[in-house]
Amino acid sequence: MSARFIVVGADAAGMSAASEARRVNPDMEIVAYDRGDFASYSQCGLPYLIGGVVEDRQTLIARTAEEFAARGIAVKLGHEVVGLDPVRRVVRVRQRNEGVTEHPYDKLLLASGASPVRSSVPGFDLAGIFHLDVMEDALNLQAYLREHQPKRAAIVGGGYIGLEMAENLRRLGLTVYLVQRGSQLFPAVDIDISVPIDDELARHGVETGLCETVLEGCEGAHGRVVAIQTSQGTVPGDVVLVATGVRPNTALAEAAGVDLGRTGAIAVDDHLRTSVPDIFAAGDCAEHWHRLLQQPAWVPLGTTANKQGRIAGKNAAGKDEAFAGIVGTAVVQVFDLEVGRTGLTEREAVEAGLHCVTATLDSTDHAGYMPDGKSLTVKLVAERDTGQVLGGQAVGYGGVAKRIDVVATALYAGLTVEELTRLDLAYAPPFNSVWDPIQVTATKLLRR
Amino acid sequence: MSARFIVVGADAAGMSAASEARRVNPDMEIVAYDRGDFASYSQCGLPYLIGGVVEDRQTLIARTAEEFAARGIAVKLGHEVVGLDPVRRVVRVRQRNEGVTEHPYDKLLLASGASPVRSSVPGFDLAGIFHLDVMEDALNLQAYLREHQPKRAAIVGGGYIGLEMAENLRRLGLTVYLVQRGSQLFPAVDIDISVPIDDELARHGVETGLCETVLEGCEGAHGRVVAIQTSQGTVPGDVVLVATGVRPNTALAEAAGVDLGRTGAIAVDDHLRTSVPDIFAAGDCAEHWHRLLQQPAWVPLGTTANKQGRIAGKNAAGKDEAFAGIVGTAVVQVFDLEVGRTGLTEREAVEAGLHCVTATLDSTDHAGYMPDGKSLTVKLVAERDTGQVLGGQAVGYGGVAKRIDVVATALYAGLTVEELTRLDLAYAPPFNSVWDPIQVTATKLLRR
Repeated sequence: MSARFIVVGADAAGMSAASEARRVNPDMEIVAYDRGDFASYSQCGLPYLIGGVVEDRQTLIARTAEEFAARGIAVKLGHEVVGLDPVRRVVRVRQRNEGVTEHPYDKLLLASGASPVRSSVPGFDLAGIFHLDVMEDALNLQAYLREHQPKRAAIVGGGYIGLEMAENLRRLGLTVYLVQRGSQLFPAVDIDISVPIDDELARHGVETGLCETVLEGCEGAHGRVVAIQTSQGTVPGDVVLVATGVRPNTALAEAAGVDLGRTGAIAVDDHLRTSVPDIFAAGDCAEHWHRLLQQPAWVPLGTTANKQGRIAGKNAAGKDEAFAGIVGTAVVQVFDLEVGRTGLTEREAVEAGLHCVTATLDSTDHAGYMPDGKSLTVKLVAERDTGQVLGGQAVGYGGVAKRIDVVATALYAGLTVEELTRLDLAYAPPFNSVWDPIQVTATKLLRR
Repeated sequence: MSARFIVVGADAAGMSAASEARRVNPDMEIVAYDRGDFASYSQCGLPYLIGGVVEDRQTLIARTAEEFAARGIAVKLGHEVVGLDPVRRVVRVRQRNEGVTEHPYDKLLLASGASPVRSSVPGFDLAGIFHLDVMEDALNLQAYLREHQPKRAAIVGGGYIGLEMAENLRRLGLTVYLVQRGSQLFPAVDIDISVPIDDELARHGVETGLCETVLEGCEGAHGRVVAIQTSQGTVPGDVVLVATGVRPNTALAEAAGVDLGRTGAIAVDDHLRTSVPDIFAAGDCAEHWHRLLQQPAWVPLGTTANKQGRIAGKNAAGKDEAFAGIVGTAVVQVFDLEVGRTGLTEREAVEAGLHCVTATLDSTDHAGYMPDGKSLTVKLVAERDTGQVLGGQAVGYGGVAKRIDVVATALYAGLTVEELTRLDLAYAPPFNSVWDPIQVTATKLLRR
């Protein structure tokens, strides 16, 4: 009898693992359970689906359950794994509108993802208050927008989802008020890099309120939300999106005695094995080895989920492969503005106790004498004593992701600031200056 | 008395060296001679000056002679260095319309660049036949276009200059016929990557003739060119641009007993010292250490000239710094199409005797479900036994330079194909797929 590989969660990490396990082992029985109705789709595309940029939700789906079935992978949607017994090696699965059944496994992957932080403020159960996590959330929000035609959106949270939804709700013609607890939007970057976001939102008619201790309550009328209360007062909103972060889904793991790490996510070794034999974890529910910090971090992102999923799947199927770790790369588009980071920000480097130096350069995306040069600000962080690159950030109207990816590659390889200046990067006037802004920034940093 | 540093050639390499020497040594006397009338400008911007994309030629000038003077660097334009005596440590300089004078040096940099390959076919002395090398060439061509209003341009050569000039002459409304000796345009990339260039030129009304043994002669009327003859027949052209490559300017060095390398350019060690004490060479006249081939190459490019110039200048001023070498990166824009390469092409890898494998992927610049996805083809070359990345090429309507720069950084750091798949690259739907096309190509290559 062939071994059975059970996957809990049929999204990025889970289905990457299932596909890779199938590739490694053509005989393995592979079953993926998901409590939702959709498998293997791009969660990151949901804001653009709501905004109508993506017109057909089917295009977000990388591969359907039928396509997986054709490759010998059973995807069971509407099936929630509600229990896990590592001693008897079984999972208990509740099928929607049906009972609970038990299924044995030989290898198990926890790929249960993360879920939005839920609020318990008064009025939070009113209609018209949404999170954006899974496809169902997007469809519910779309239905609400269609049915009730709200005019004023209040967005709580200035991270990825909050910013992308501000853009996409403006695209639909709503007024948007975005409130943020801290003193800056997109705290994934240093505050000097985030400032242009404020201007870009204002330029596109999004009102923002910083330093609001958000969501003290929600006000309703006829059962539907009409406003939210923050420390600064009342913000009208006949539709409310709460995007104040996510937490790893670890309840199943915890109940089964699988260790969590210090981040609160499931602890894994470099092979993505948990503390319990034959149980792997990958993606947003697991920890992520940080190459620069040389310790586990928790940075839930689709890219990492895909990478970890593949490796967990390989190892579950008998291979022996290690996850190389993350360097902390992320990018977001806010209307026409691009903002990205990789490695450690200045704040993160200081928090990690590193003695760092920084340099920031205001430049353009291509040769200064070419028309339509787009502004681009680059910031580099390096370790003072070693010259090691610790991180890079960029904000501007073009070329941000390119610079972030070069620095991300340099970080992976452990290059120094001096080595950044030596890179043989592509140059022609429509693309760049003869010295890339990264290299000019690196030179500036070296002279400190 | 302070040491005197003489620089021969006041462009990218020369003026980078002069600036860096000044930075290192505030007391050094620094004099740069150039036979031309312009110093320190972007040669790469000249096609765009002719096309009117760059409206003001002053914007191409990075720094004027006056600005250099303010930093204690004497730039002597219209001064040709005609002789070099390493024993007496003097250069002989001919000032235009003046005599020849002798000037002693303590350190010397040869930064004399490269010049177009000149033809000796019948009729080549007709008016209306141009090269594009220095600013004067651009101004002369502009004057000819203004005065004679030619309608039909014939371009000889399908490399960088030929392609950029095809675009820019079309922009001015001329018909353009481009002839190329070999079987492909832009031979800096493999032929499968260059094919879209043919289509892009056709799409923009540029006629191309491949496999023409070009320029057997030029026909004229009233002293001005009206057509060129190739092996395939006669191509009408009332203005002709010949862009069939360049050669290093080595006459001065050779006459002084400075060794040339096997490439025909001036041989230099890793500190950019020539075979003669206290004489350095940098930029298009010198050889360029190739990190992948582990031998000197000759790849004349502005980026390399700037890097070598800085290092030569530092070393001339007493520092001790090595040039890290090139990895063979280049990019060109052809109308809306972007084409780039880094490392070795498949052809170059085979020629170098390397046992290589390749993978090519047709993809898009960002997430497939987002609108306006721009086609992007990526090709990777790797060494079969080691998995070492040998090179990357890309062609498409967006994101080419970004991918080339990631691979260029990976090549600098000596990463393997497997490591490319592990890079933590930036992802958000407007920028990328969750796996960058480079990583998908790398995965494809790994499976071979």
